[in-house]
Amino acid sequence: MADLSRRQLFGVGAAAVGGVGLGLGAGAVVARPAQADVVAETVPFHGEHQAGVETAPQAHATFVGLDLRPGTDRSALVRLMRVWTDDAARLTEGRGALADTEPDLATAPARLTVTVGFGPGAFRAAGLDDRRPSWCKPLPPFEIDKLEDRWNDGDLLLHVGSDDPVTVAHALRVLLKAARGTAAVRWVQRGFRRARGSEPEGTTMRNLMGQVDGTVNPTSGSADFADVVWNDGAEQPWFAGGTAVVIRRIHLDLDGWDELDRPGRDEVMGRRMSDGAPLTGESEHDAPDFEAAGPGGLKIIPEFSHVARARPMAPRERFHRRAYNYDEAPDGIGVSDSGLIFVAYQADVDTQYVPVQRRLAEADMFNEWSTPIGSAVFAILPGCRKGEYLGQGLLA
Amino acid sequence: MADLSRRQLFGVGAAAVGGVGLGLGAGAVVARPAQADVVAETVPFHGEHQAGVETAPQAHATFVGLDLRPGTDRSALVRLMRVWTDDAARLTEGRGALADTEPDLATAPARLTVTVGFGPGAFRAAGLDDRRPSWCKPLPPFEIDKLEDRWNDGDLLLHVGSDDPVTVAHALRVLLKAARGTAAVRWVQRGFRRARGSEPEGTTMRNLMGQVDGTVNPTSGSADFADVVWNDGAEQPWFAGGTAVVIRRIHLDLDGWDELDRPGRDEVMGRRMSDGAPLTGESEHDAPDFEAAGPGGLKIIPEFSHVARARPMAPRERFHRRAYNYDEAPDGIGVSDSGLIFVAYQADVDTQYVPVQRRLAEADMFNEWSTPIGSAVFAILPGCRKGEYLGQGLLA
Repeated sequence: MADLSRRQLFGVGAAAVGGVGLGLGAGAVVARPAQADVVAETVPFHGEHQAGVETAPQAHATFVGLDLRPGTDRSALVRLMRVWTDDAARLTEGRGALADTEPDLATAPARLTVTVGFGPGAFRAAGLDDRRPSWCKPLPPFEIDKLEDRWNDGDLLLHVGSDDPVTVAHALRVLLKAARGTAAVRWVQRGFRRARGSEPEGTTMRNLMGQVDGTVNPTSGSADFADVVWNDGAEQPWFAGGTAVVIRRIHLDLDGWDELDRPGRDEVMGRRMSDGAPLTGESEHDAPDFEAAGPGGLKIIPEFSHVARARPMAPRERFHRRAYNYDEAPDGIGVSDSGLIFVAYQADVDTQYVPVQRRLAEADMFNEWSTPIGSAVFAILPGCRKGEYLGQGLLA
Repeated sequence: MADLSRRQLFGVGAAAVGGVGLGLGAGAVVARPAQADVVAETVPFHGEHQAGVETAPQAHATFVGLDLRPGTDRSALVRLMRVWTDDAARLTEGRGALADTEPDLATAPARLTVTVGFGPGAFRAAGLDDRRPSWCKPLPPFEIDKLEDRWNDGDLLLHVGSDDPVTVAHALRVLLKAARGTAAVRWVQRGFRRARGSEPEGTTMRNLMGQVDGTVNPTSGSADFADVVWNDGAEQPWFAGGTAVVIRRIHLDLDGWDELDRPGRDEVMGRRMSDGAPLTGESEHDAPDFEAAGPGGLKIIPEFSHVARARPMAPRERFHRRAYNYDEAPDGIGVSDSGLIFVAYQADVDTQYVPVQRRLAEADMFNEWSTPIGSAVFAILPGCRKGEYLGQGLLA
C-alpha cells in the first residue's frame, strides 16, 4: 500500500480513499480542509458486467476510439488490459493510479466508471478473429449517413464517465498515458447531460433540441434489461456478460429545427416536446397508440414520425439508449455545432439495432434535421473479478 | 406573463420559475415528475455589478469572443444589449427567453450567470472611442507568448457560467441567436472545474497539472475585493461598477510536466503540490516567507519560482483570478491538449495585471511548461437595474 502511505503522508483526500466515507487515515496529518463533505460516491469496478452501461448515466462522458499501433500483438494487448484494469479499479475508488503524477485529482470519483470495448481490429491484432462476435464490424451503410472518417470505427473503445468533469479529464489522461506505446487516439467525443442534482433521479434526458430522449429504455436492474443488453455467450462463450455498443455521432440541425413551430415538432417526433408523452397519451411513459385516428381520419401519430418508425417490429428489436449531448464551437455559419452522441447497448447489433435503424433510414420525418456523421461498433468486454483483468476470458 | 402561462399550461418546471422553491404554479397541470427536487439555485442578474465575477465559480463556463459585423453602429449595439439583457434576466431565473424555441431546457439555472464585455472594437463601432477605458486594448507583447490569432481579441465578450452544462449550452444558443445579425463568433473557449458538490464550498481549484490555483484571491464580498476588482469611474464615469477582464489561453505541457518529480514540481511553483502551502508554510493560506533560507543558505522558496515572481511588488498589483480548465482532443502526438483558461478581473489592467505578467514573462521557472496561446482584454460593463439594459450608461 505504498500509494496509500504516500497519500496519508501528504494528507490528501484520505477520507475518500476506499470509497464512500470509509474514513481510512482519519488520523493522518490533514493539511487542507477535511474532505468529509466531498461527494465521493463510487460505482464498483469489478463484477459480472463492466460498469458504465447499466449505471445511471453520469453528467459527463468521454468516448475515445483508439487505433492499435502496428506490431501490437496478443501479449501487448494483455499488458494494456492489465494496466487499464488496475488503473480503473483504483481510480473508480477515488485513489490515484499507480505512479499517478496528479493523485490529488483522483479524490472525487463522483461515480466514475471506465468501460472498455474491442473493435474488429483488436481481435485481428490478437490473432483471435475466430472469437470475434459476428456483429462486431462496421454497420451496413444507411442512405441517410454522411459519415466522416474522423468519427468512425477504431480498434479499442475507452469510455470514461463521471459526474465531475475534472475527474473525467484526469482518469482519461492516466489511461491514455498507459496506452501510449500500444495505441493512438483516433477520435474523442465529449458528451454531457444535466449536472447531477439538476433533475430528479430517473428523469429521461432532453437533448439539445429539447426532445425527451430515451423514454422506452429497459429498466436498469430488471430481467428485461439483462435480456436486452447482456450477451449470453451462445455464439462466443467467452463473451457471456459482455454487450455490444453502437456509437453514432448525429449532427442535429438546430438552426433548421428553429423554423418548425411547436405543433410541427410534436408531429415529427410523434411525441409532445413539452413532456415527451406520445400524441395519443397523457404522460411520458404511456404506450403510443399507432392506430388511433383524429377527426379527419388521419392517424394521430403520423406514420412517418420518429416514434412510429423507431418502434420495435419484432421482440428482439430493442436496445438500451444512453446518449450524450455534444456542443462544439460553431463554424461561423450556423449558430451552433450541436448534436447527439447516440450510444446504444444490446446483446447483438445485427438483430436488435440494425433493423430499427434501417426503418429509420428509409423514412423518418426527423431525418431532415438529424444526420449521422460518425459510426462505430465495439464489443464491450464482460466484467472481471478482483485479480482478473478485462478481456482475460478472450486473451488468456 | 404570457411566458409563465404557457409554461404552466405545459406543466414544465413551474416550481423552478422565479427562483428557489417559490412554488409558483404548484396547482398547475404537471404531466411529468414534480420538479421539487430540482436544484434551481439562482444568482440575481440585476445589480450594481454584473454577476459571474464575484459569484463563486460555477462548474462550467463558456467564453465567446465575437466580432461585430461591418456596419454595426451604436443603435445596433443598443438593440443587441436590450435583447441580451432581457434574455439573460429571464434565463438566469430559470425561465425561457422570449420566443425561446426550447424553453424546457431553461428550467435548471443551476446558478446561471451571463456576463457581457466590450472590446476596443465595440467602442469604435459605437463612435465612442473617447469613452473607452485606456487599458481596453490588446496587452503588450510578452516574450513567452505564442499567440494564435484564433484565440485572440474580439469586439464583444459573452461569458456564460452554470453548474449545469446543458444550461450553458441552451443559454449560449439563445444569446448567439439573438446576436446573429450583429456579430459573428470569433472564438469559443469551454472551461470546467469540479462539479458542484464534489468539494467543500470555497476550496481553491486545482488545475489539470494538479496545482492548487488561485490561493491569493481577494475574498468575495469584502471591501478588499471591491477595491481590487470594481472600477471607480475615475477615468470614465460611465464605467463605475465595471471591471476589466484579461482572458489568456495557457497551454499546459502535461507531458513535459510528467518528467518532473514531486519535489521538483514543488520547487518550480514555490508551493507544495499536495496542499498548495508555500514551501515555508504549513497550510495553503499561510503567507510565503520569501527571505527564509534553508541549511545551505539557499532560499527555501526559489527566487524564480512561480509564487515568488507572481507576488505583488506594489499595492495595486493584485487581481481576482477565476480560471477554468480546458481539455481538448489530443493532436495524435501528445497524450493531452490541456490547459488553463486564465481569467483575471481588476479595476485597471495596466496597473494591476501587466506589471505582474511582465515579471512572470521575464523569469518564472513555470514558463517552461506553460505557454500563452491566446489573449484578450474586455471592459466588463457595469451592472444594470430592472428596466435598464447592459451598457446603457455608455450607449444611451
